[in-house]
Formats: sequence, structure tokens, C-alpha cells
Amino acid sequence: MNRISLEAARVIVRETLNHAEKAKMKPLSVAVVDAGGHLIAFERSDGAPAGRFDLARGKAYGSVMLGIGGTAQRDRAEAQAYFIAAANVAYGGKLVPVPGGFIVRNAEGDVVGGVGVSGDTSENDLAAGEAGIKAAGLVPEG
Amino acid sequence: MNRISLEAARVIVRETLNHAEKAKMKPLSVAVVDAGGHLIAFERSDGAPAGRFDLARGKAYGSVMLGIGGTAQRDRAEAQAYFIAAANVAYGGKLVPVPGGFIVRNAEGDVVGGVGVSGDTSENDLAAGEAGIKAAGLVPEG
Amino acid sequence: MNRISLEAARVIVRETLNHAEKAKMKPLSVAVVDAGGHLIAFERSDGAPAGRFDLARGKAYGSVMLGIGGTAQRDRAEAQAYFIAAANVAYGGKLVPVPGGFIVRNAEGDVVGGVGVSGDTSENDLAAGEAGIKAAGLVPEG
Amino acid sequence: MNRISLEAARVIVRETLNHAEKAKMKPLSVAVVDAGGHLIAFERSDGAPAGRFDLARGKAYGSVMLGIGGTAQRDRAEAQAYFIAAANVAYGGKLVPVPGGFIVRNAEGDVVGGVGVSGDTSENDLAAGEAGIKAAGLVPEG
Repeated sequence: MNRISLEAARVIVRETLNHAEKAKMKPLSVAVVDAGGHLIAFERSDGAPAGRFDLARGKAYGSVMLGIGGTAQRDRAEAQAYFIAAANVAYGGKLVPVPGGFIVRNAEGDVVGGVGVSGDTSENDLAAGEAGIKAAGLVPEG
Repeated sequence: MNRISLEAARVIVRETLNHAEKAKMKPLSVAVVDAGGHLIAFERSDGAPAGRFDLARGKAYGSVMLGIGGTAQRDRAEAQAYFIAAANVAYGGKLVPVPGGFIVRNAEGDVVGGVGVSGDTSENDLAAGEAGIKAAGLVPEG
Repeated sequence: MNRISLEAARVIVRETLNHAEKAKMKPLSVAVVDAGGHLIAFERSDGAPAGRFDLARGKAYGSVMLGIGGTAQRDRAEAQAYFIAAANVAYGGKLVPVPGGFIVRNAEGDVVGGVGVSGDTSENDLAAGEAGIKAAGLVPEG
Repeated sequence: MNRISLEAARVIVRETLNHAEKAKMKPLSVAVVDAGGHLIAFERSDGAPAGRFDLARGKAYGSVMLGIGGTAQRDRAEAQAYFIAAANVAYGGKLVPVPGGFIVRNAEGDVVGGVGVSGDTSENDLAAGEAGIKAAGLVPEG
């Protein structure tokens, strides 16, 4: 697989939401994008705020565009805030540099897309997304 | 119901795609938004072009924001292109004024959200979306 | 090949420019993007106006995002100008709907990227780009 | 030469990439702009993330527009982040204020264009770009 199929994207979304529900997290939203950052699938849980799409997609989009996951983006932002701010403007405002953003690789290590999870703490978003991506047989880099 | 639930949104997406598959349409993309135009769910079929999200979401968003479905938007654009162009700028570019965009009402006639379908001819997009919305027990206004 | 390699992109750019030079066309500019619309390679010939990048990239980007080449975009714009105008805004202004924009497919028919050529008449841009894409062993859809 | 020719731009791009390959750097992307900041040439190496064009072009564009290279921009950002943020907005988001951005001068000291390199550490981007610009007989100011 060199692109996340819709079927795989559905597994990622559902298993991320299932993980959150079992762990009694707040209502999550999950975006899955292809390796070019274009949306394949998205779901927003009932009870989540109206603005979750932009945050979840931003986590996924920025990860794919920069080639690093949300944790590494946060570390770069802590060290050099003006660089991440500039990258965000360069990418049209679609970068949300905190954990919960993932590059997704296949078994061969190729980037096949990205995932963004938003709704609870960044650490919980990270844990839920990892569970979802692994359930689809893919490798998360968060 | 005064807002499309995630469960209802899933039915809309799946039954729209099922209708398209049975009718041997091109690969469709489907966006479901709430009554404020904010995304609840989206799926892009395998094989659809990268840019389908912006078109499907634009059909849904513009329908909800203007309060008329895609067919009425097209008629207005044919009669008065500058009005639709101005509305598009006012809405931040998120208006795609052709059939395949729907206002969605509940049984009481309240607007509960919008749907946008993109990928085949506008007429086929319209037919597929109507099937999906009705399958969720809601009323399409395309 | 499921993505245009840099080596293939170089062949496309050079052979497009060679074709133009032999045919005594005006100085051309050529953009090659991947299937997500992201730039792989670009060259602007000496003597071309400063603004050619946005036109060449726009032809390539719009082709990939809409899933149709520049000729079909022009026909749609002639028939339904407001739709193409709306799509252009939805894509952030990066759509130039005239011949000289191409979807590029591999031998199996998969979309592997896009090409945009700008600088002479749309018809000459089209002819030069076709020559360049074929020289790389790929299939132009202009 | 008061403008980087396409031939010189090709030398810059190729020798920057050659330097990176010999030094076993990550896959780089290189943008060359004229003295007005308009793109002359760009190449993205196979394996680089999708978003590299915006970063490489931003480094080149910001250098030419501000009249200082990436190292001086970084120092200014460290000292006065709000100034660089304001400049970035003024320049439409096309400023990436870290090493790897260059003003390019000819032997007489005139600014003839700019170069942006992105993909490895800022320091490695800087070293690769210097090698490329010097190989074209021009003077880098990074």
C-alpha cells in the first residue's frame, strides 16, 4: 500500500474513537490525509466543539508537509517558535504543532499519509491515534 | 434531532457511496456539515482526484450558509453570476454553486445540517446525495 | 512508477523546452507536480515574464486537483464560468483553466502527477507539454 | 550578469544537490529566484516531504525581499520575533527566517537573485547552498 485506502482510513478513524471511548476520553475528532495532505476521511464525535476539523486536519496536514510528527513539531516550536510560525503561514495556516499529529508509514517505511487527532489532552490524542493507526496495520510516527 | 448526529452522518456518507457504486458512477466524495457549516464527516472514494474535499465541503457549506440547495444556487449563478461570486468571497471561498449541495431538514422542517457530493456529473451527484440523506430518515433540499 | 521521480520531471521540463525552442516558440515555463499538486520541478526560460510560475503551476495544480486537463477545464469554463471560478477560490487561487495543463498517467493509467506549461499560445503550450511528457515515457492528458 | 540565467540556476540546483548527496545529507529541495523574488528554478529530491517547496522558496524570497540572508534573519528573529512575524505577513507568508536562505551577488556585488535550501539541519542546508552558488561563479550571502 503506497496510499492509505478509504477502507484503511475508516479503520483508523473508528479504532481511534473506540480507544477514546474505552479510556473515557472527551469526544475526539480524527482526520486522515494522503501523502499530499489531502483529506481522505474525517469524523467528529457528538459533543465535540464546532472547530475541531481545522485542528485535527491541521495536525495531519502539518505532519505530512513537514515530514515530522506532532511531538517533534512541538519540540521545534518550543526551541524556535518563529520557525514553526513561519512554516504555518507558508502552509496557509494549516499546521497545528502539538502531539496528536502523525506521519503514517507502511511496513516498508514509505510515508503513505497522515493522521490528526484532537479533543482531549495532546497526550491522550497521541495515544488514541497510535491505537487507531496500528489497528490498520500501519506505523504511526507521532 | 436538531443536529445531524455522527451516526446519521455515517449513514448519509455510506448510502450515498453505495448508491453511486450500484449506479456505476465515478468515485464520489461526500461531506456532511452541521447547521453552522462545520464538518461532521467526510469520505473520499479511492480513485477520486486529490481536490474533491474542497468541492464537496463547499457544496455543503454554501448550501447551509445561503439557505438554499445547489440547484437553486446554480440557477442564481446563471441569472446573476456576480452575486454568487460576491457571496463566495464573503464566505471565504467555501461555496460551490452547482447541484450536489443540499440543505438537510428533519421531519419537522428544521435545518439540521448540509451535505455536499462531488465526483460525477452534477445530476448524478444530486441523485446519490438524495438517496443517502433519505436513508438516514432526513429530508434533502438539493 | 506511481509518482513522477525527479529524474522523470527533469526529462519533462527539458524536452518541453527543447520542443519549444525547435518550434521557435516564445520562452516557456514548465512546472511538474506530484499527484497531490506539490511542486517537484520548475524552470522559467530566460526572457519569460516574472509571473510565469503562478500560471504554469496553476495549470498543473488545477489539473491534478480537478482530475481533468486544461482543455476540459477550458470547455467547462466556457459552459459554466461560475463553477470554475468557485473551484479556483476553493483551491486558493491556484487554478489556470486553459490548455497547457496536464494530468500525467503512467502506463497502467494511474495518475502520477501533473504538468503545466505557459508562455506561448495555449495550443503551443499544449503541444510542447505533450512532447515533454511523452519523452519521459508517460501519458499526457491535456 | 544582473540576473541569474536559467543556465546558472541549473548549476546552482545541481551542485547544491550533489554536495548534499556526497555529504550524505537528507533529500534536499532547492529554489532559485530572481532579484524580484520570482521563481526561476526549483527541484525537490525524491524522498523529501511534500511541503518542501514552500520552505525553500520562502527562504529565497525572504532573503531577496529583506536584503539579508537566512542567518541574519534568524538572528533578528531571536532578538525581535514580532518584527519578523510582521514582515512575514507583509510578504504574504513567503518568509522562512532560518539559515539556508541566501542573497546571491555577482562579482561586482550587485544582487542578482536569491536561493533557498531546505531538507536537513539549517546548518547543512547552508553549507550545501554555498557550494551550489559558488559553483555557478556567484557570491552567496547566507
